[in-house]
Amino acid sequence: MSKGTVVLAYSGGLDTSCILVWLKEQGYDVIAYLANIGQDEDFDEARLKAEKLGAKKVFIEDLRGEFVEEFIWPSVQANAIYEDRYLLGTSVARPCIARRQVQIAQREGAQYVSHGATGKGNDQVRFELTCYALYPEVKIISPWRIPEFFNRFRGRKDLMEYANEHDIPVPVTPKAPWSMDTHAPVDLYLMTKNPEDSPNTPDVLEIEFLKGVPIKVTNVVDGKAKDSPLEIFSYLNEIGGKHGVGRIDIVENRFIGMKSRGIYETPGGTILYQAHLDIETFTMDKEVRRIKQGLGITFSELIYNGFWFSPECAFVRDCIARSQENVEGKVQLSVFKGQVYMLGRESPKSLYNEELVSMDVQGDYDPCDASGFIKINAVRLREHHRLQGLSGSKK
Amino acid sequence: MSKGTVVLAYSGGLDTSCILVWLKEQGYDVIAYLANIGQDEDFDEARLKAEKLGAKKVFIEDLRGEFVEEFIWPSVQANAIYEDRYLLGTSVARPCIARRQVQIAQREGAQYVSHGATGKGNDQVRFELTCYALYPEVKIISPWRIPEFFNRFRGRKDLMEYANEHDIPVPVTPKAPWSMDTHAPVDLYLMTKNPEDSPNTPDVLEIEFLKGVPIKVTNVVDGKAKDSPLEIFSYLNEIGGKHGVGRIDIVENRFIGMKSRGIYETPGGTILYQAHLDIETFTMDKEVRRIKQGLGITFSELIYNGFWFSPECAFVRDCIARSQENVEGKVQLSVFKGQVYMLGRESPKSLYNEELVSMDVQGDYDPCDASGFIKINAVRLREHHRLQGLSGSKK
Amino acid sequence: MSKGTVVLAYSGGLDTSCILVWLKEQGYDVIAYLANIGQDEDFDEARLKAEKLGAKKVFIEDLRGEFVEEFIWPSVQANAIYEDRYLLGTSVARPCIARRQVQIAQREGAQYVSHGATGKGNDQVRFELTCYALYPEVKIISPWRIPEFFNRFRGRKDLMEYANEHDIPVPVTPKAPWSMDTHAPVDLYLMTKNPEDSPNTPDVLEIEFLKGVPIKVTNVVDGKAKDSPLEIFSYLNEIGGKHGVGRIDIVENRFIGMKSRGIYETPGGTILYQAHLDIETFTMDKEVRRIKQGLGITFSELIYNGFWFSPECAFVRDCIARSQENVEGKVQLSVFKGQVYMLGRESPKSLYNEELVSMDVQGDYDPCDASGFIKINAVRLREHHRLQGLSGSKK
Amino acid sequence: MSKGTVVLAYSGGLDTSCILVWLKEQGYDVIAYLANIGQDEDFDEARLKAEKLGAKKVFIEDLRGEFVEEFIWPSVQANAIYEDRYLLGTSVARPCIARRQVQIAQREGAQYVSHGATGKGNDQVRFELTCYALYPEVKIISPWRIPEFFNRFRGRKDLMEYANEHDIPVPVTPKAPWSMDTHAPVDLYLMTKNPEDSPNTPDVLEIEFLKGVPIKVTNVVDGKAKDSPLEIFSYLNEIGGKHGVGRIDIVENRFIGMKSRGIYETPGGTILYQAHLDIETFTMDKEVRRIKQGLGITFSELIYNGFWFSPECAFVRDCIARSQENVEGKVQLSVFKGQVYMLGRESPKSLYNEELVSMDVQGDYDPCDASGFIKINAVRLREHHRLQGLSGSKK
Repeated sequence: MSKGTVVLAYSGGLDTSCILVWLKEQGYDVIAYLANIGQDEDFDEARLKAEKLGAKKVFIEDLRGEFVEEFIWPSVQANAIYEDRYLLGTSVARPCIARRQVQIAQREGAQYVSHGATGKGNDQVRFELTCYALYPEVKIISPWRIPEFFNRFRGRKDLMEYANEHDIPVPVTPKAPWSMDTHAPVDLYLMTKNPEDSPNTPDVLEIEFLKGVPIKVTNVVDGKAKDSPLEIFSYLNEIGGKHGVGRIDIVENRFIGMKSRGIYETPGGTILYQAHLDIETFTMDKEVRRIKQGLGITFSELIYNGFWFSPECAFVRDCIARSQENVEGKVQLSVFKGQVYMLGRESPKSLYNEELVSMDVQGDYDPCDASGFIKINAVRLREHHRLQGLSGSKK
Repeated sequence: MSKGTVVLAYSGGLDTSCILVWLKEQGYDVIAYLANIGQDEDFDEARLKAEKLGAKKVFIEDLRGEFVEEFIWPSVQANAIYEDRYLLGTSVARPCIARRQVQIAQREGAQYVSHGATGKGNDQVRFELTCYALYPEVKIISPWRIPEFFNRFRGRKDLMEYANEHDIPVPVTPKAPWSMDTHAPVDLYLMTKNPEDSPNTPDVLEIEFLKGVPIKVTNVVDGKAKDSPLEIFSYLNEIGGKHGVGRIDIVENRFIGMKSRGIYETPGGTILYQAHLDIETFTMDKEVRRIKQGLGITFSELIYNGFWFSPECAFVRDCIARSQENVEGKVQLSVFKGQVYMLGRESPKSLYNEELVSMDVQGDYDPCDASGFIKINAVRLREHHRLQGLSGSKK
Repeated sequence: MSKGTVVLAYSGGLDTSCILVWLKEQGYDVIAYLANIGQDEDFDEARLKAEKLGAKKVFIEDLRGEFVEEFIWPSVQANAIYEDRYLLGTSVARPCIARRQVQIAQREGAQYVSHGATGKGNDQVRFELTCYALYPEVKIISPWRIPEFFNRFRGRKDLMEYANEHDIPVPVTPKAPWSMDTHAPVDLYLMTKNPEDSPNTPDVLEIEFLKGVPIKVTNVVDGKAKDSPLEIFSYLNEIGGKHGVGRIDIVENRFIGMKSRGIYETPGGTILYQAHLDIETFTMDKEVRRIKQGLGITFSELIYNGFWFSPECAFVRDCIARSQENVEGKVQLSVFKGQVYMLGRESPKSLYNEELVSMDVQGDYDPCDASGFIKINAVRLREHHRLQGLSGSKK
Repeated sequence: MSKGTVVLAYSGGLDTSCILVWLKEQGYDVIAYLANIGQDEDFDEARLKAEKLGAKKVFIEDLRGEFVEEFIWPSVQANAIYEDRYLLGTSVARPCIARRQVQIAQREGAQYVSHGATGKGNDQVRFELTCYALYPEVKIISPWRIPEFFNRFRGRKDLMEYANEHDIPVPVTPKAPWSMDTHAPVDLYLMTKNPEDSPNTPDVLEIEFLKGVPIKVTNVVDGKAKDSPLEIFSYLNEIGGKHGVGRIDIVENRFIGMKSRGIYETPGGTILYQAHLDIETFTMDKEVRRIKQGLGITFSELIYNGFWFSPECAFVRDCIARSQENVEGKVQLSVFKGQVYMLGRESPKSLYNEELVSMDVQGDYDPCDASGFIKINAVRLREHHRLQGLSGSKK
């Protein structure tokens, strides 16, 4: 008799294949669920594999459109970046994937969900907080945190033995670990060319924004244009990847309190980050931007920590969306050898006033006002100096 | 009879040369003061020029050492960056220059200081707030805010005519204005090579930090090493410049409330920014870093707005310095085609614990704890879901 | 021939009466404008006085309703408080008053507005920023910053002489200045009773909120109830005043950089501040509240500094309003001898779950999860301890 | 054979008495530890009781001095307050108590510590994070999170039965639970008089501060004075209690994500909070204060959540201490019927300049400067208005 049905987030790889078989061994019916969020994968092969391993059903879900529109676009609006460097690619994918997983579980009447994330990482948190937030009664099976499982599979070798015993196809190359001071292996990057091998001529793009999200990208050289969210994002990934844009090698602080090394590539995301920063500063009031910058940092931490589906994240998202009302216009940029260079920008909502900043025209602006402005700003500083004089100390 | 003595921040250029002569016309004795903060300048020629134009005295001050140690190093510690992009090069130079200027004024018994900053920019504020903070009784002559001056010199043409009349040497090339959507002219950059023309092989550097500031840089390929602040900074400018690192073309929000376009090059600063971010995240506790990140943003705004010499900036500087106690170790990076790539890092103060993050060793860490951690974090989210269910709305 | 028309914010007092006459002397046509925001004033008498002094027209505008709904209610939602103590009464009145003033100016074709605020205070800023924001072309006459005016009227004595010469009625009691260590005179307070003389029995009120604003107040003892914004606010002022609630004697930092002493009374505002805090914490998610708390501080500074009508203040107001969606329910409190005591609260949107916190019922909550939660939170702390051990220092 | 030695935080009450006996039943040697942080307790009786119940050793530790100086004073400097209302009394006591407990454990060679905090509250977190931070190898026995314990003792009745069986003295009155809308019972408050029954004449105190902490308190009426930390704090508790100061009835958000009702009394803390706010605003630069205010909020959350002994809390404490350098002077206040009223303040480090704010003297201040200040602040607002005009929308 079955213990119940589990919807397993299945990747087709060694770990989740072993988990699929192990869950069956434990007495569960397993529904394999594989999300397509744009990764390079043979989904048909993965379906066959899951079926062969005994999945009762297999769902392969194309989430690419909703991933870009509902998860990446808000992150672009927020200039989301974690600890000043990480553009949060995987972090925003996780709630998108888990949301569909609990939808399947609810539809299929499954009380359990499962995943292959380790017990030391961020993904377990992102995955499970999403599940609990959207399906509070769900039960989560997290094998890498279950002693019977993790004591049995103490390393990759144990997994591979188990795979051999159960006709689970095994990948050829073992993952090599490396420490903080090792240079990252070149073949680690899948989406981006090595900048040393990238083209010697730049691509020049024009990205058009409306309400803080891209609505069109045009290659200025060959005239190629894209205007649906998914196509825009894919094209930017393609161009960015071709020029080796968006590789980072960082130390990061995981939510659960340990430091780890992260090597990421975010080609399209890096281009969008730069382009959005530019059009935003061009069209958004200075002080609105300052407040919004703080909200963007909060938003990034929430995403990183797995709180996409939380009341505070919904709140911050709404606030940020409100800030983007006038963020529209076109940005020109060139992409070359790992870098993105802004070339210019234009907007019907620009707050830039050429006459106002001109050194040759006064316009409506009276430079004498600046004297008063500076003197009033100095009132406090001069008082402070006075006090220091009295108390005999200087700083 | 003289109206008094003015210490003029003299650059040797057209504007301040005209101002020097104009101040004398108004009846002031003029002391010309030229600060060497590392710019490419013929200081002897500038001295002769100032003397020829009638300066009573000329001071050429080598501030390079104190500029690097007292102004740039704290900015490196803070990861100072304005509006997510601008590394504040000029902004930190201004208080350094103005401080010496008021010192000269006090020493020489001058009641007046003067400068050539325009009436619409940030530099007037940075300059004058420094003066008022350090010499509250000083009187500031800011010609570009004096109607008699700015009405007489309504554009570059007027200045050049005046220069011709008064034997002031005139530069050959007029400055060309360009709007927000024009591509920046290539010859605008003085310190950095065009990345398209930069070397096809990277330089690999190792930078060593102690208390958050660089104490040594070594070129891993040729073994060249520098270990004094000024030499380190100059060498990073040289290597960064050679590879076209640190060019930005941005829209920025001036303190006085207008938007302008800024084109900057900060080769050494960009390398240091990246390297310091890396060693800091490696050695600083996660939560200390979050708090310090907020202080760094405040610090950057204070610098940009001209408040280097203010009680709040001193306070924030002290707090940031406190956070840097354990920020030490070595960072390896490569510099190539406008980019800086982290290669690895090591530190005696590292908070990274390889065993703790390892997927093969549990160490002291019990993965089961993560289940409790996640469930407790979900308490609030599940309650929120419950409430939404009751009230019939979903978000 | 007239120099043009000025709309003067007229209070009926000595200063603005003198200004009215002085503006006419200078050759302006003067429209007197007096806003009723609920202050205790004989408006008919003020109209007669203004007419007698030569006002071309007199507008007495009842702004009480819009003041409460558009200005006070958003401040209640924000828990607006400046420097931890000041509830911003006057600060929110100013933009409300100035908005109507520029509306009158535009309607009447007046290019000028004028006011009697001093050249050292906050009100001049609040007043004028509102005018510039809503009527950018307006010209502002601020007599206390015009040398001909302030040099002529160097103190109260000069004003009174001028008043006598021009048949301006003069108040009997001269204002007495007092320094920071003088006890405030008892007769300074107009709205609130001295707590020592207030009733010996409390009033008990029930305030009902919807979307973060009060929609009804009921006196639990006598059953008296109010349910329109203006009536609610007036009644809370009455009850608060009767019990001496809301008096403060503080040092505050003015926007223009000087410290001053402020003695305020905000009886109704104090009751609402306490009641709103209570219902908000009861119904708002913890983390939403933390983010909203930061926005509330920003909002308070913006109001204090005069930026009510600014893009950033509109942005923050919208964000705060978004946070108040579920802030509804009833609060019971008692008002007694200068204090407000919460007695209880109830809400259909409560996030409080009696079963969840109960010490006798576990409910859905597993206490064992807390062990994991705490241990994961301790990971970082233990690592920190380990590092300190290695480096030999302790903090 | 003993399983080892446990240091139990013993209160003398029912819960920890049962835990003491239960731990012995489980095979542990138990050291009872009772901290004196100023609570009203018969410590000799508690010692006898613990010995009678079988404690191997009993430590009664007088922590009153270090509690006030090392824990309360920094909280006063920070104006520490959680969620705008709670002065964190218990929260700061916990790390103080737990620190001594692990010191005893280390000294006595005990590997275990134990406490009676429930599995749903904040105190378990505060207690255990302190233990892990200071003694990372410690093992914690938290009975209320151990199924064998909490399943056996499902309510107060079970505890009392167990107490009867084991000769544990039982308190007479059972605790009555009350929900969110019940008025708090009058006998709940132990330190403070009901304001309705408090004296009809105020006490007037003068509190002197140095570096942000009180160094002397004087009763202005009877001349009584205290000048050691413990005596100052005790005296303020006495006077505050006598006048019913510092009672609050709030909803609060626990760290673990649930809302609960909290009824607290903090008589001395409330007086100090008000007095410190006053002297701080009087002597601290405005902008330093703004930054410090943000740090104070962070500090309060850290304390509430149990992170007193964490690198970030140490960092923030140091920053706040730095901000207090000039916070010195005397504050006069009256305490009456539950309220604290500021009467005046004086300080050698005052930044208040009577001449500067005077309406009769211009001093060094030129009111015309304010015109420029306001106009420059309006540049951005007028540009914003212009853009809105262009785009046809108004906000």
